[in-house]
Amino acid sequence: MGNRIHNAAYQSKVMSAEDAAALVNDGDMIGVSGFTGSGYPKAVPIALAARAKALHAAGTPFRVSLSTGASTAPELDGELADANAVNFRTPYQSDPETRKKINTGEIQYADIHLSHIAPQFRNGFHGRMNLAIIELTAIKADGSLVPSSSIGNNQAWLDIADKVIFEVNSWQSEDLEGMHDILGGIKQVPLDFAIPIYHSGDRPGSKYLTVDPAKVIAVVENDTPDRNSPFKPLDDVSKSIAGHLLDFLDLEEKAGRLPNPMPAMQSGVGNVANAVLAGLLHGQFENLTSYTEVIQDGMVDLIDAGKLEVASATAFSLSPEYAAKMNDNAKFYREKIILRNQEVSNNPEVIRRLGVIAMNGMIEADLYGNVNSTHIMGSRMQNGIGGSGDFARNAALTVFVSPSVAKGGAISAIVPMVSHVDHTEHDTDLVITEYGVADLRGKSPRQRVSEMIKVAHPDYRAMLQDYYDVAVKVANGQHTPHDLSQALSWHQRMLSTGTMKA
Amino acid sequence: MGNRIHNAAYQSKVMSAEDAAALVNDGDMIGVSGFTGSGYPKAVPIALAARAKALHAAGTPFRVSLSTGASTAPELDGELADANAVNFRTPYQSDPETRKKINTGEIQYADIHLSHIAPQFRNGFHGRMNLAIIELTAIKADGSLVPSSSIGNNQAWLDIADKVIFEVNSWQSEDLEGMHDILGGIKQVPLDFAIPIYHSGDRPGSKYLTVDPAKVIAVVENDTPDRNSPFKPLDDVSKSIAGHLLDFLDLEEKAGRLPNPMPAMQSGVGNVANAVLAGLLHGQFENLTSYTEVIQDGMVDLIDAGKLEVASATAFSLSPEYAAKMNDNAKFYREKIILRNQEVSNNPEVIRRLGVIAMNGMIEADLYGNVNSTHIMGSRMQNGIGGSGDFARNAALTVFVSPSVAKGGAISAIVPMVSHVDHTEHDTDLVITEYGVADLRGKSPRQRVSEMIKVAHPDYRAMLQDYYDVAVKVANGQHTPHDLSQALSWHQRMLSTGTMKA
Repeated sequence: MGNRIHNAAYQSKVMSAEDAAALVNDGDMIGVSGFTGSGYPKAVPIALAARAKALHAAGTPFRVSLSTGASTAPELDGELADANAVNFRTPYQSDPETRKKINTGEIQYADIHLSHIAPQFRNGFHGRMNLAIIELTAIKADGSLVPSSSIGNNQAWLDIADKVIFEVNSWQSEDLEGMHDILGGIKQVPLDFAIPIYHSGDRPGSKYLTVDPAKVIAVVENDTPDRNSPFKPLDDVSKSIAGHLLDFLDLEEKAGRLPNPMPAMQSGVGNVANAVLAGLLHGQFENLTSYTEVIQDGMVDLIDAGKLEVASATAFSLSPEYAAKMNDNAKFYREKIILRNQEVSNNPEVIRRLGVIAMNGMIEADLYGNVNSTHIMGSRMQNGIGGSGDFARNAALTVFVSPSVAKGGAISAIVPMVSHVDHTEHDTDLVITEYGVADLRGKSPRQRVSEMIKVAHPDYRAMLQDYYDVAVKVANGQHTPHDLSQALSWHQRMLSTGTMKA
Repeated sequence: MGNRIHNAAYQSKVMSAEDAAALVNDGDMIGVSGFTGSGYPKAVPIALAARAKALHAAGTPFRVSLSTGASTAPELDGELADANAVNFRTPYQSDPETRKKINTGEIQYADIHLSHIAPQFRNGFHGRMNLAIIELTAIKADGSLVPSSSIGNNQAWLDIADKVIFEVNSWQSEDLEGMHDILGGIKQVPLDFAIPIYHSGDRPGSKYLTVDPAKVIAVVENDTPDRNSPFKPLDDVSKSIAGHLLDFLDLEEKAGRLPNPMPAMQSGVGNVANAVLAGLLHGQFENLTSYTEVIQDGMVDLIDAGKLEVASATAFSLSPEYAAKMNDNAKFYREKIILRNQEVSNNPEVIRRLGVIAMNGMIEADLYGNVNSTHIMGSRMQNGIGGSGDFARNAALTVFVSPSVAKGGAISAIVPMVSHVDHTEHDTDLVITEYGVADLRGKSPRQRVSEMIKVAHPDYRAMLQDYYDVAVKVANGQHTPHDLSQALSWHQRMLSTGTMKA
């Protein structure tokens, strides 16, 4: 492990992960760092899980509440969930063990918009924050705190938590120093200042996190890599969806409905997002900017190609190969990449001002443009809404993307009525599958139906048309015709027969 | 009619409403003034409806598309809908004739968030705007345009419409001059400036609307009052709901979860909103501010009592008695009331910055906090989402209010699953009925169920509990347990038997 703690006062607080974990109390509300598998604490949570298991074996209750930036990794969410040590969890998560316990009812999960988390904690909506556990890259001689590969809610947690444990991770490149822009001074609302970002590349904040040193009760060293799960190679469906979006943007620009250069893009994590980024690499758009949540492989390629001027986010979500490249070349990339507080990366003020083009994945959409991003068949939580609601409501153009079917065709992504709504018909501008673009802008619900059927998988188009034809006959109003007796029948059929097909 | 046109160039364009209506073309997209029955054109639309009827009688097609601020009145929406002269309508409306034709499918209605309307038109999402018809209070000698009792999208329409017709209404008080704050210079996104409002009372804009005079093709005079429908006297249910909210706010302030003075409030139109305002008149809160859409009677009382420092909105929604009072005393009230562009009154940037407390009515909410504000039994449009989504998503505290039952108890406002979602479980903090406050903050969906059942009408509580008990047994996940076979059964029963009761 490299020596990354250059300040004597903090050096004096160095201890083992086990000793630090012993300082956590049963029932604590803990704010942890971590966003999409980057910059989460990697040693103390494992020790805490071991301690919880030992306590449970001895008949002693021990459970904590966890608030993160977004998803973390097996060493944090996975270990603690597996140890039955998590009572409450917020916000976005993607851990299999955590998901399992959310869906058995063992973990209470509050699925909150990412931009709202810090303000809600400041307002006291979630009670007192007893402890923060935050990963850093280094502590400088003057006590400056160099952040690591995600910012998330770290500054908010450091501001409001009663006590703080730092993990200093020497796997992170020291050259990350200068990549971050931490906006300080955000207090309980009302605020009396604008978020001073007028271009994705603006840096109104500080390079360092700040904390009252008296609150720091432990410093733990580690050198474990971020999770950085590999992306799958781009498949044809993802490439096709990306192609439709890029063709659409081309046409919009030619029609004068998109300025040149294009407004900043936000893109959710995943294959389709990476396919869009890959498409932009070979497309006509230049001087691109990104105002988004996570830095993905494709953005790194766009920076290398000189197409992407600057990318603003709150975290990395890189494959191992690209994480290594980032660590080797952070001195270069820190000029083009900015990691911010997530209440800034996801702030409605900046999203509206910049006219962001927001592109997010979905589970399903219905004939009228309502979108489900979170629930499988209405009841089962997948990952959470993340920041998609911050962007979808406030962006200038809101796009949802998905393959037209899942489970080998047994599940249609276009259904009569979604089984849960995360994004309303009022928010959805485009729905894109491998079959094309459903352009819902300026259309009444009934005018949207043919657009949506057009992008459904051919196996489901006649079924959708049949549903609509009956709905028009039986509905109590022709604005959004529904047959309530059949609206959720596709989901019921899936649950009972294993396919939505009749 | 008083002489309100003091500029010779505009005076030369004065003509009859009939002559002005003759300048409208079949198929025109028309941007009209008007917001909650205030400041809409009152003469040209009636003449246009008469012209449409005559053309239809002669077998000539004639239909236009209408984009407003929000709801207008019988002289505009009513007359044109009745004449079958409306092809497309956006956004919020509350006119019986328009509603009827939306629900027969004769009018295509796009229900868009109020803050998004102007930006979407600037982006070209709704095609070209051929004509604007805008009510004014006066035209000054230097050509300055004094707005009337609503601003809505007027400045945007004047900026982008090919041609403009003014109606100058001498019923409006000349002392309205100075009550408005028109933020100019808003262009197609991205913007490179912050909305410069840091307190509800800030006035960064101009007192006057602006237009390229060459675009003005007609000026029509009228002296017709705004619609100003009377509010019903406060009933016990509304008073009770208001009391619960005020008690809650008291407790929050004592617990330090609300600053003192309280952040700016937004309140939807209607009885419950007026009851809350009446409650504030006798409550402990001082130095109140309002950052909202409409000025209601209760706000005028709060200003008179010295409790409300300033109210920012985009329109009046006053009873005839209070409209007369406003007209008589506009010189006083214009110091305390500001009417802004609706893309500013509803801007997510300012709503988030000020930490607005947003209170809106609803049709129904479900066990998990999803809210339906627009659709009766899933298909039938009532009025539209209005600005509630701008506020609900971006406010610091989001409250929905409703009596627990409608139609003499036949309809429960708390249901197993809402039949349409306008506000998601991620947005809803409180649901309040006459039975109390369901506090959903920081709770998982399952933890919300007992809160929601608590505020349901007693006649429906056991039915809700029964639904939940079965849902827990049959659901494919315990995060948001639903029994899809029964989730919409209450609405189906209402449609077939006339009551949600079993």
